[in-house]
Amino acid sequence: MRELLRVGGGAVDLAAIDPRSTPGLPAVAAEGDGSRKAWAREQVRLLGAALGRQQEMLYATAQAAAGPGAPTGAPTAADAAPGRGRPDRVLLVLQAMDCGGKDGTIRRVAGAMNPLGLHIRSFGPPTERERRHDFLWRIRRALPPPGYVGVFNRSHYEDVLIARVESLVPEATWRARYDEINAFERELTGSGVRLVKVMLHISHAEQGERLLARLTDPTKHWKYHPSDLDSRARWGDYQAAYAEALSRCGTDAAPWHVVPADRKWYRDWAVAHLLRETFDDLDLGYPPADFDVAAERSRLCGA
Amino acid sequence: MRELLRVGGGAVDLAAIDPRSTPGLPAVAAEGDGSRKAWAREQVRLLGAALGRQQEMLYATAQAAAGPGAPTGAPTAADAAPGRGRPDRVLLVLQAMDCGGKDGTIRRVAGAMNPLGLHIRSFGPPTERERRHDFLWRIRRALPPPGYVGVFNRSHYEDVLIARVESLVPEATWRARYDEINAFERELTGSGVRLVKVMLHISHAEQGERLLARLTDPTKHWKYHPSDLDSRARWGDYQAAYAEALSRCGTDAAPWHVVPADRKWYRDWAVAHLLRETFDDLDLGYPPADFDVAAERSRLCGA
Repeated sequence: MRELLRVGGGAVDLAAIDPRSTPGLPAVAAEGDGSRKAWAREQVRLLGAALGRQQEMLYATAQAAAGPGAPTGAPTAADAAPGRGRPDRVLLVLQAMDCGGKDGTIRRVAGAMNPLGLHIRSFGPPTERERRHDFLWRIRRALPPPGYVGVFNRSHYEDVLIARVESLVPEATWRARYDEINAFERELTGSGVRLVKVMLHISHAEQGERLLARLTDPTKHWKYHPSDLDSRARWGDYQAAYAEALSRCGTDAAPWHVVPADRKWYRDWAVAHLLRETFDDLDLGYPPADFDVAAERSRLCGA
Repeated sequence: MRELLRVGGGAVDLAAIDPRSTPGLPAVAAEGDGSRKAWAREQVRLLGAALGRQQEMLYATAQAAAGPGAPTGAPTAADAAPGRGRPDRVLLVLQAMDCGGKDGTIRRVAGAMNPLGLHIRSFGPPTERERRHDFLWRIRRALPPPGYVGVFNRSHYEDVLIARVESLVPEATWRARYDEINAFERELTGSGVRLVKVMLHISHAEQGERLLARLTDPTKHWKYHPSDLDSRARWGDYQAAYAEALSRCGTDAAPWHVVPADRKWYRDWAVAHLLRETFDDLDLGYPPADFDVAAERSRLCGA
């Protein structure tokens, strides 16, 4: 799946990727849309259980490496500072147009894992304090600690997307950020963070339907903001900004993947697969005991 | 359930609460242990779905109150600073002896909710930096922001439990903490945090079996540490420390609940119920639109 969905290393043409397509979906599931959906949902459940086991191994290994007295939580920026060679954490970066399905993907895919080992951070418009720093400052503070699976709901890529389209900074500033992002991500991957960068790719028509749903269902009004339509009016500009970001920052160490996302069940299945392949690479296992197991059993049973 | 499981407002006798009992479990489920277990697991699934909906309303309401420009994540200590009257977040505080089932409860109960709206923090031995501050310092920094469901995996109560039993601080210090905790929790509940404090109550025999399982199954070795047996040797001291903490800090604003936890399926069902009753109290709903719905529909469909 990673090779199939990967873009970059050249110009990216988003218009050539059909948001309703289902690359990599096995033929066994390729009958009616209803049966494919049911099959994919069941697969996500199974994949989620497998991801949960791998997530536990990742966590256990990091705990063992940190030593017994290490705090098991309340992660701080200091804990998350990179500095180790072997990949010891995974970071899923999710980007999409409004209504692209970031929240739904997190609910379904991350929701299948153990919440104790998840480190989810969402990035809205930067606060006044955040604006006083470099654009990567708040990103660094949000990195997952060793052993965790991080999820970024939006990310530093907003700083070359919305910042560019809405002219929040001069062109020279956002143009320089491609290299800054690449350097930052090289630093991350070199120090134990395995990046999985995903753009959820929806069509203009599908966004329209989802926005209409938010305007029709009162339980969805809270997800809508009038500025969503202003962004929609600049659809072409955003697609161009995405294409350039994917092209400029799709590196071998941290490639970009485009997941066709008009079909939610395919989207979830594809993202779960990308995570699964990433975990498989890490060749995870449970750490060996750092104590004398037989002696402890004697202590316990004699006690 | 809250009234049934509540302790405090007088001396607490943990020995009088059977860790294998199942208070509040409906008679319909009271046949064989196997069928009760299946029934409870299914109920937790259903309760989880309901909790997920209520969690979304809590989140949506907080988002609407914060205004459209508010960052939707990357919670900071400043975001979490109390200051509002109406309850706008829930904080589940979990305490238990080793192997008491805190992690399992989080996986099963919190895992049924949307991970985007969860704020889970675990507290291990304080770091050097944390020890330079008041014991509540790291707790304040870990509070959930408005709209979130927080879970504390251990908490400030360790500072009157392990700190007392292991003599980490002088008696005068930990004795003073009961009042400090009560003042702190009064401040929290007065400013929008609804506390759900739960002690998972297991028996000495059940702990022995679970420790043996961790020593027997190599995939569980990482959860074991030889110091677990040292704590087990002081079981009586810990039970006494728990009893006094529950008694001294079981207030009307922030009561303590003891959940019999030898049976994992009952434990999960009871905790899910406590959360459900807490959410029901909040009388949640979706916020009304703060924009002209008809006008936005026209804009969308005309575009």
